[in-house]
Amino acid sequence: MPAQEQGAVDGSSSSSVSDVGEFGLIDQVQAAAGSHDRVLIGPGDDAAHVRTHDGTFVVSTDLLVEGRHFRRDWSSALEIGRKAAAANLSDVNAMGGVATALTVGLGVPADTPSAWVVELAKGFEQEAALVGAHVVGGDMTASDVVVVAVTVMGDAPRPVRRSGALPGDVVAVAGRLGWSAAGYAAMSRGFRSPKAAVEAHRCPRPPYAAGPAAADAGATAMIDVSDGLLADLGHVAVASGVLIDLRSSTLAIDEPVRTVAEALGADPLAMVLTGGEDFALAATFSSATDLPDGWSAIGSVRDVAGDESPGVHVDDAPWDGDTGWQHWR
Amino acid sequence: MPAQEQGAVDGSSSSSVSDVGEFGLIDQVQAAAGSHDRVLIGPGDDAAHVRTHDGTFVVSTDLLVEGRHFRRDWSSALEIGRKAAAANLSDVNAMGGVATALTVGLGVPADTPSAWVVELAKGFEQEAALVGAHVVGGDMTASDVVVVAVTVMGDAPRPVRRSGALPGDVVAVAGRLGWSAAGYAAMSRGFRSPKAAVEAHRCPRPPYAAGPAAADAGATAMIDVSDGLLADLGHVAVASGVLIDLRSSTLAIDEPVRTVAEALGADPLAMVLTGGEDFALAATFSSATDLPDGWSAIGSVRDVAGDESPGVHVDDAPWDGDTGWQHWR
Repeated sequence: MPAQEQGAVDGSSSSSVSDVGEFGLIDQVQAAAGSHDRVLIGPGDDAAHVRTHDGTFVVSTDLLVEGRHFRRDWSSALEIGRKAAAANLSDVNAMGGVATALTVGLGVPADTPSAWVVELAKGFEQEAALVGAHVVGGDMTASDVVVVAVTVMGDAPRPVRRSGALPGDVVAVAGRLGWSAAGYAAMSRGFRSPKAAVEAHRCPRPPYAAGPAAADAGATAMIDVSDGLLADLGHVAVASGVLIDLRSSTLAIDEPVRTVAEALGADPLAMVLTGGEDFALAATFSSATDLPDGWSAIGSVRDVAGDESPGVHVDDAPWDGDTGWQHWR
Repeated sequence: MPAQEQGAVDGSSSSSVSDVGEFGLIDQVQAAAGSHDRVLIGPGDDAAHVRTHDGTFVVSTDLLVEGRHFRRDWSSALEIGRKAAAANLSDVNAMGGVATALTVGLGVPADTPSAWVVELAKGFEQEAALVGAHVVGGDMTASDVVVVAVTVMGDAPRPVRRSGALPGDVVAVAGRLGWSAAGYAAMSRGFRSPKAAVEAHRCPRPPYAAGPAAADAGATAMIDVSDGLLADLGHVAVASGVLIDLRSSTLAIDEPVRTVAEALGADPLAMVLTGGEDFALAATFSSATDLPDGWSAIGSVRDVAGDESPGVHVDDAPWDGDTGWQHWR
């Protein structure tokens, strides 16, 4: 039926996915989902928290599509498997948990070498082994491009959400920032160096010990940096209804990031603030908390004042550069 | 590197996915996975069984690709969501468990109406509600065709595996057989009737009460009929190392199957034996067991004799018709 006949004021019934955008559409779907007593934490955090007949677990899922999330000519099957696993293990890390099990749904063209699939599976096992998790199930089907669907489950006795940041809290990060973006920028221009940045893009190194340590230390909110520090801390700010102030002078600009930025005439701070896929963690802690090993302070949390909206500032002002990317835009 | 230089005797390093086939490749991947103390049941059953810090859960996953597993011109978004959910809920049912949570990874072309996505999500919620489960998380990305990745988690205090069938056991089924295949056959030829068969193909009705009932009754082995009764009981026979004898006279040929078979000049028994996607359950029980409600006996289990291999016979002989389908063949 034409949209006009439905009298859709907000246009949602005639709009396309690209009009509404990923986040808007997820909001629509979540609004329909409601809340349920078996679901302790539902959609909208890094992982959901579910009650079973005898306990609880956390779970998160990712869908990766060739050409969009990875390239077979840039990364080996082993690297693609490791990175896909890392992205998901990181979601459990961001809840302060430890992953126990992964499932993998794999779509591949029929002419894909079977050795490629076996290497991909090896990559999953290698990365999962870093936290003691295993691939426990999977599905395989034919598709035109490679599609990798990953679901991770884990233990998080004290899950840390996005919504708990309080005015006065310290903002801290653990792990690398900007390395993967630097590697991507270099590879996009045909370079295969600096090696550290390229390898970081192909095979990120999430700080797996830092999530449980933050939960143990009483972190008030946490998220993993998959889309970029500003974008992801923005989710924390909105979920918590606060303003997050970052001090640019406290942000480490590591050597591979500096090297690539110099070579390309780019702003290294922008890479650190907006680069995703290193799967660092960002969290907030009470100012009375001693930050756990591997964490360093980069800013503070304050109340939203006057006509401000919850969000992230850098050195007391909104960042006016690029703030990440959205899948359809 | 050319395959010749690798001296691959078994061809596995130079073979493609279509050479090895889905099941062969899954075997290769599983062989690499090993066993682990957190993984009570690993890949190779309808669902894995995982130990958490304070309990256990079962988990299974499916990857569905437009054009291969569903067609947007044949089924509404609601129906596609319901069927994708049903296929996964059925895996937990086949372990004798009850699903608690689902995650959904969704790839859609950017011009997909957002209302289509919202309807798909509604379909998931509707089907999940039949067993008291909910969608707890998801991921969305752009892709050329619609891709739906589903993972289901559930409670199965006493999981029933494929490998426990014993000589002397009774073989029984619960749920519909051949309905979806009949609907598919009719729709493939341009018909939109008989309605019962077409609706069964668009929106199957798995016997959700039958799985836990079978587990409670002490079923020795169980599987859901997703690929076809012969193909799926074949997995039970191989995993259990037995021969399964079906009596064709005991197999109900329901009216929609009979109608389509007559109209198309097809063998209705072949539809019942090889039609998939109704998500019936097939299980084995000790002959001393009273079959639970909804279950009916269709055969028996016996030892493999002489040079026989584990497998399924129909009326004392191998079935010589089509035994299902494989994704790459």
